[in-house]
Amino acid sequence: MFHHSGKLQYEVRVENPNPQFACHLQQAIGGIEGEIRVAMQYFFQAMGARGDAKYRDLLMMTATEELSHIEFLGHAVALNLDGAPTSLQEKAAGDPVVNAIMGGMNPRHILSSGLSAMPVNANGVPFDMSHVYASGNIGADMLANAMAEASGRVLATRLYNLTDDAGMKDMLSFLIARDTMHQQQWLAVIEELGGLEKQLPIPNSTPPEHEATEHSYYFLNTSLDEPTPKGRWSSGPSLDGRSKFSVVEKPEPLGQKPSLGKARPDVGAQKEQS
Amino acid sequence: MFHHSGKLQYEVRVENPNPQFACHLQQAIGGIEGEIRVAMQYFFQAMGARGDAKYRDLLMMTATEELSHIEFLGHAVALNLDGAPTSLQEKAAGDPVVNAIMGGMNPRHILSSGLSAMPVNANGVPFDMSHVYASGNIGADMLANAMAEASGRVLATRLYNLTDDAGMKDMLSFLIARDTMHQQQWLAVIEELGGLEKQLPIPNSTPPEHEATEHSYYFLNTSLDEPTPKGRWSSGPSLDGRSKFSVVEKPEPLGQKPSLGKARPDVGAQKEQS
Amino acid sequence: MFHHSGKLQYEVRVENPNPQFACHLQQAIGGIEGEIRVAMQYFFQAMGARGDAKYRDLLMMTATEELSHIEFLGHAVALNLDGAPTSLQEKAAGDPVVNAIMGGMNPRHILSSGLSAMPVNANGVPFDMSHVYASGNIGADMLANAMAEASGRVLATRLYNLTDDAGMKDMLSFLIARDTMHQQQWLAVIEELGGLEKQLPIPNSTPPEHEATEHSYYFLNTSLDEPTPKGRWSSGPSLDGRSKFSVVEKPEPLGQKPSLGKARPDVGAQKEQS
Amino acid sequence: MFHHSGKLQYEVRVENPNPQFACHLQQAIGGIEGEIRVAMQYFFQAMGARGDAKYRDLLMMTATEELSHIEFLGHAVALNLDGAPTSLQEKAAGDPVVNAIMGGMNPRHILSSGLSAMPVNANGVPFDMSHVYASGNIGADMLANAMAEASGRVLATRLYNLTDDAGMKDMLSFLIARDTMHQQQWLAVIEELGGLEKQLPIPNSTPPEHEATEHSYYFLNTSLDEPTPKGRWSSGPSLDGRSKFSVVEKPEPLGQKPSLGKARPDVGAQKEQS
Amino acid sequence: MFHHSGKLQYEVRVENPNPQFACHLQQAIGGIEGEIRVAMQYFFQAMGARGDAKYRDLLMMTATEELSHIEFLGHAVALNLDGAPTSLQEKAAGDPVVNAIMGGMNPRHILSSGLSAMPVNANGVPFDMSHVYASGNIGADMLANAMAEASGRVLATRLYNLTDDAGMKDMLSFLIARDTMHQQQWLAVIEELGGLEKQLPIPNSTPPEHEATEHSYYFLNTSLDEPTPKGRWSSGPSLDGRSKFSVVEKPEPLGQKPSLGKARPDVGAQKEQS
Amino acid sequence: MFHHSGKLQYEVRVENPNPQFACHLQQAIGGIEGEIRVAMQYFFQAMGARGDAKYRDLLMMTATEELSHIEFLGHAVALNLDGAPTSLQEKAAGDPVVNAIMGGMNPRHILSSGLSAMPVNANGVPFDMSHVYASGNIGADMLANAMAEASGRVLATRLYNLTDDAGMKDMLSFLIARDTMHQQQWLAVIEELGGLEKQLPIPNSTPPEHEATEHSYYFLNTSLDEPTPKGRWSSGPSLDGRSKFSVVEKPEPLGQKPSLGKARPDVGAQKEQS
Repeated sequence: MFHHSGKLQYEVRVENPNPQFACHLQQAIGGIEGEIRVAMQYFFQAMGARGDAKYRDLLMMTATEELSHIEFLGHAVALNLDGAPTSLQEKAAGDPVVNAIMGGMNPRHILSSGLSAMPVNANGVPFDMSHVYASGNIGADMLANAMAEASGRVLATRLYNLTDDAGMKDMLSFLIARDTMHQQQWLAVIEELGGLEKQLPIPNSTPPEHEATEHSYYFLNTSLDEPTPKGRWSSGPSLDGRSKFSVVEKPEPLGQKPSLGKARPDVGAQKEQS
Repeated sequence: MFHHSGKLQYEVRVENPNPQFACHLQQAIGGIEGEIRVAMQYFFQAMGARGDAKYRDLLMMTATEELSHIEFLGHAVALNLDGAPTSLQEKAAGDPVVNAIMGGMNPRHILSSGLSAMPVNANGVPFDMSHVYASGNIGADMLANAMAEASGRVLATRLYNLTDDAGMKDMLSFLIARDTMHQQQWLAVIEELGGLEKQLPIPNSTPPEHEATEHSYYFLNTSLDEPTPKGRWSSGPSLDGRSKFSVVEKPEPLGQKPSLGKARPDVGAQKEQS
Repeated sequence: MFHHSGKLQYEVRVENPNPQFACHLQQAIGGIEGEIRVAMQYFFQAMGARGDAKYRDLLMMTATEELSHIEFLGHAVALNLDGAPTSLQEKAAGDPVVNAIMGGMNPRHILSSGLSAMPVNANGVPFDMSHVYASGNIGADMLANAMAEASGRVLATRLYNLTDDAGMKDMLSFLIARDTMHQQQWLAVIEELGGLEKQLPIPNSTPPEHEATEHSYYFLNTSLDEPTPKGRWSSGPSLDGRSKFSVVEKPEPLGQKPSLGKARPDVGAQKEQS
Repeated sequence: MFHHSGKLQYEVRVENPNPQFACHLQQAIGGIEGEIRVAMQYFFQAMGARGDAKYRDLLMMTATEELSHIEFLGHAVALNLDGAPTSLQEKAAGDPVVNAIMGGMNPRHILSSGLSAMPVNANGVPFDMSHVYASGNIGADMLANAMAEASGRVLATRLYNLTDDAGMKDMLSFLIARDTMHQQQWLAVIEELGGLEKQLPIPNSTPPEHEATEHSYYFLNTSLDEPTPKGRWSSGPSLDGRSKFSVVEKPEPLGQKPSLGKARPDVGAQKEQS
Repeated sequence: MFHHSGKLQYEVRVENPNPQFACHLQQAIGGIEGEIRVAMQYFFQAMGARGDAKYRDLLMMTATEELSHIEFLGHAVALNLDGAPTSLQEKAAGDPVVNAIMGGMNPRHILSSGLSAMPVNANGVPFDMSHVYASGNIGADMLANAMAEASGRVLATRLYNLTDDAGMKDMLSFLIARDTMHQQQWLAVIEELGGLEKQLPIPNSTPPEHEATEHSYYFLNTSLDEPTPKGRWSSGPSLDGRSKFSVVEKPEPLGQKPSLGKARPDVGAQKEQS
Repeated sequence: MFHHSGKLQYEVRVENPNPQFACHLQQAIGGIEGEIRVAMQYFFQAMGARGDAKYRDLLMMTATEELSHIEFLGHAVALNLDGAPTSLQEKAAGDPVVNAIMGGMNPRHILSSGLSAMPVNANGVPFDMSHVYASGNIGADMLANAMAEASGRVLATRLYNLTDDAGMKDMLSFLIARDTMHQQQWLAVIEELGGLEKQLPIPNSTPPEHEATEHSYYFLNTSLDEPTPKGRWSSGPSLDGRSKFSVVEKPEPLGQKPSLGKARPDVGAQKEQS
């Protein structure tokens, strides 16, 4: 069950409100790299968690923290919209500065939300929940979470660079810090479960006889004219410790030429197809 | 530039066509765990790759392989739709077997595609390209790719369990194998770049002074009544080797109580708000 | 800031797990009538609330409750998926009961989530955040909220009728009750602000001179052959107390025949259009 | 059956074409507050109407009017795009005014529609029909309609403020007026059916024994540190006249700690989960 | 401006209500091959029509007819839902017939619409307006319209085959007939404008000097091992009468090996990329 | 099976990088008129092709070419983003030129992709695969393909006009040329199959007795006050050679007044509806 306290998890100050930066910040709320996604992803993973219960708790506690991130980011968006032009009475006709603001901001911050945050990204596209990855497999889920936090920290870094507002930089430095922790905590679960060697391939419960293992450890160079890129993946032991990496160059098809024959007479094809 | 050869990458046999399994297989084509996603994800990552060119090639070569996976899966869907009921002339009214097939299959396999594959998932929801993660950061992208392949192999394993068709099991055992390789090849890039210690936190180029590092290494227990789950993430050195993990229990808010004050008179609020 | 406690807001019991009912329950999680929607809607309204701060608190407290509803519903979905068929080893080939279950359940509960809840509706369509209505106008928002709870209670009633599981009926009777309260609490805000007469038309801050009031109080009968439906809307005082309702039958167009003339030569039209 | 006449329902004049305002106007066509939504919502409600037939007619007649609103708004968008820059031959390189226009307008008004209206919102996101609320319950539907018209009138008011074109202001004053009527006509249906006391809780046909009425009339203060906001919803008779409002502060969970136990061996989890 | 009359454009009879067929019929309302799409497509094309005004009228008149098609199809869906099982009181537990109906029908016809039509397709996916093709080019638009009607008539034919209800067959035979006319009326516009030779390539207003015409008339065989399929497209005069078709086999790339170099230090890449 | 070679199909030069044009170019990648759509459309049509195998090959070969178009367009986007402002260190505060660039470019080119192409359109909306039209009917599919190429060439023409970069104009002149060929090659298939007279109506396999042919050849003037637009569609032989076109003016409804009666007591309607 959830509870709430009245103050924000972190302080939000905006020294120079900037409606265009409000638009940018939306990516951290409603973008695929944003906080709605991680909050919901950890929440749904927790609800489906099976096995050692401590991972369920880990997920739910961090989901709860991410909800608090949405909250202070939402406040930051609203503060950045302070003073945005909403009527022509406020501005000289054709003022280039006002025009630039209007052009660069999200018009729906005026038209739809009345100068506050929305669950959309920096293009105004609403977040959709298909981005909540929760597979029931703890290995796949931990990678999904580490990846979400990696893209989140990349985003926070880019936002940090885009703004010159000291308050916003301070808030973003907190987000960058928390994303540091969250990246590592999910990968730490994999370490605790024995590390990659024991966890790979995911799912590690697939019986070997369900896998055509002769195809499991070669890199396929599908290029007609480029040499195989050599590296950790092209030779040496596989990461799961079960085999060795190798390379197949200029692969030949292993299958047939596909053919579906004629169309049945009653399926709405043209007569010429049957 | 792309080229094509006439045969499939792997042989597709269907011994007992099953329209319901055709619906399930769609998840491997147009689901978020499926082949369109990885083909496009590696393709867009390759197009944006900066730094050592060999990673660009690695991405493009595997993108090309994934296109071939779409192709043989698409053929498998069509073969499973062979003999599906499309008109009432074919069946006795009220035949429970036919009814069950009709209920469990995707009706658009009859109505929209004329008994062939579609770029949709097992619910008939079209794939949308927001799932193509390509950030310009090789660390984030490699995690995204490993995760995509992990969820792909989880899916292939589940499909393997769902079918009892020997041909389908054979094809899926090949997919399971290739997903094994692909998981590891992306994580091998991280190993080659120095492993997690050097790559974390992602992006590793964020200047430390942009980060509130006092918040970077503690786990936040946001629960009112549950003990902190202890593990690799709650104590000991951080995975990036820069600090130590710790725990903050029952955290207090660090920020203010948010307030936006009154509504401006011209923004379409109710009078009572201003 | 959000917090969590380890137990569910309400007890969840499932006596006879039913994978098809799990699919139905998803509508209450990820449907437009569901709990993700109201949780996020009240949360975003709270973050944008201007005017008397108590409405902000009212919204945030109820948003927090709705998060707890997602949580127990998610548990109910997982419990209903207990024992769902995931491999052919478990069932006799062609067993009609198993086939019916497979046909009626969401295949992604097996393929994607591994037998747990997803943020999707009963068709498997992911929730998208465009359904979060938060306009910055407290009157519009309270109507949006009352409507959301009305559709939520309609849904809960229909789910109650569909199941014969005593545990599920008990849980749904709790949801029905809370939706009763929530419908009324949002409409009570309107009452407290003076009731419809004072709040209408929304926004009540639009200056009368911005409105062509000669068109504000007539019902337009656009039918060629049907009589005007008579009722509270066709005569008598308007609900805002400012005017009287009337009727316009067989209205004539007030505007021009639209014409855009020729296409400019450089806009990619056909030559014949310019 | 529908019919059409050649002139617009209301006159459209644009004195100073403004491609950026064309982009804003799109919200009134393809936004969630816009005319496609209400036209389709009333149309689908009418098609599903059960009970007294006059409500069906009321809905269909207004659906028909809303189609006419799309039509004149579409014309207004096209007229505002008159003279938009579509080729570099028309402008001096780097002209800041032209750049500002290009930046603020919807590029697809040039690239995709050839200078005419599209069924998209002010961010260029296409309208999707999930926003058509038609539940089969007249109470829920009337609230949905009143809400749609409230948000529509908020939007029209904001558009009115954003433009300084006399023709556009005239057209918008008509829209504001019609939204006034439409808000009230839907709420008038509720009044006619006995008002809120008789209609609440929606659906009013749910048998009381299906509801855990001990949970139906209290406000839940889920905050750890904020006092309960007091008002019409926290004490006094409920709006449905059946009970009294009360408050529960610092609620305790009523349910169990959720647990799903171990993963089954064949569902694609990691071995460590089973 | 639109008007409405009270009767349906065509009579709707359902002799044996079939909730599963109601689900199938939705494809004709809210599918990409359905009536909402064509109604809105012709409407938006009409609003953007430039050049000879008679094409605008042609489009608007047919848009109006398509609205009437939505209307009678919507009624057909509701009639097919008559008697659908909505509560367990109505059925014996485990009745296979009832289970099959429940499995094959759209659960949201019970849960969301209360047994009436929705603006969704046969998978329950809502129609989205991105499928409204209206380019401002009459040639492209006429092809888009002919294609929409072709796919519509394919769909109606498949629905006709799927049902054995005489009333539904009668209604669908009317739809098939109208789609016959509509296919031809749009292609007739192309004929009237001089036929393909004059209209191709679309847009026919592109100045020849904007086109690398040396690449305009050859078929590119991108296969490594399949012979060029020979036909009307591989030799002989081009359809626009300006050139001759030819074939290029085993094409060589004409461009460079792409390279983006190093990442800039401040864009959130990994250090190893710069 | 697919293969790749290292160079681009066509050379990409950008003389003056323009981040706003990068945003425009995205329409040619991820727009409905763009290359992902045609690549995937031809690919899925090929996978479902029935009848003469040469059409399958034709489709697959061109699908392969379109993948190469995505590739060089993606490179063009990245080159146009060269030098885009990503941090405030790079620019003088308030520089109007920089502000204009920021306003007109896609912010996600900075925030999400790190200065490279994305699978989105010019509004930043991700491509979704519902636009892949593949019906199993070769006539419908060829029209869909010709239409896609027509809208593609309209788009390329508009992009050509918008840019003044010689390199971009050169690349676009190649795209315009290939779209010329592709339009014609798909229509050439129809010609080869006997032309419109033999192919219409699509599907030409619908038995005449399934069609209410008395409604198949008249144009319906649904306007109350506009004369019937006269042309090739209103008189003379039908394009399929089977009948003659005629006109029906001021059509009367042929159907009944729809009525669904009362709501059943258990479906969650209001009491007043039953």
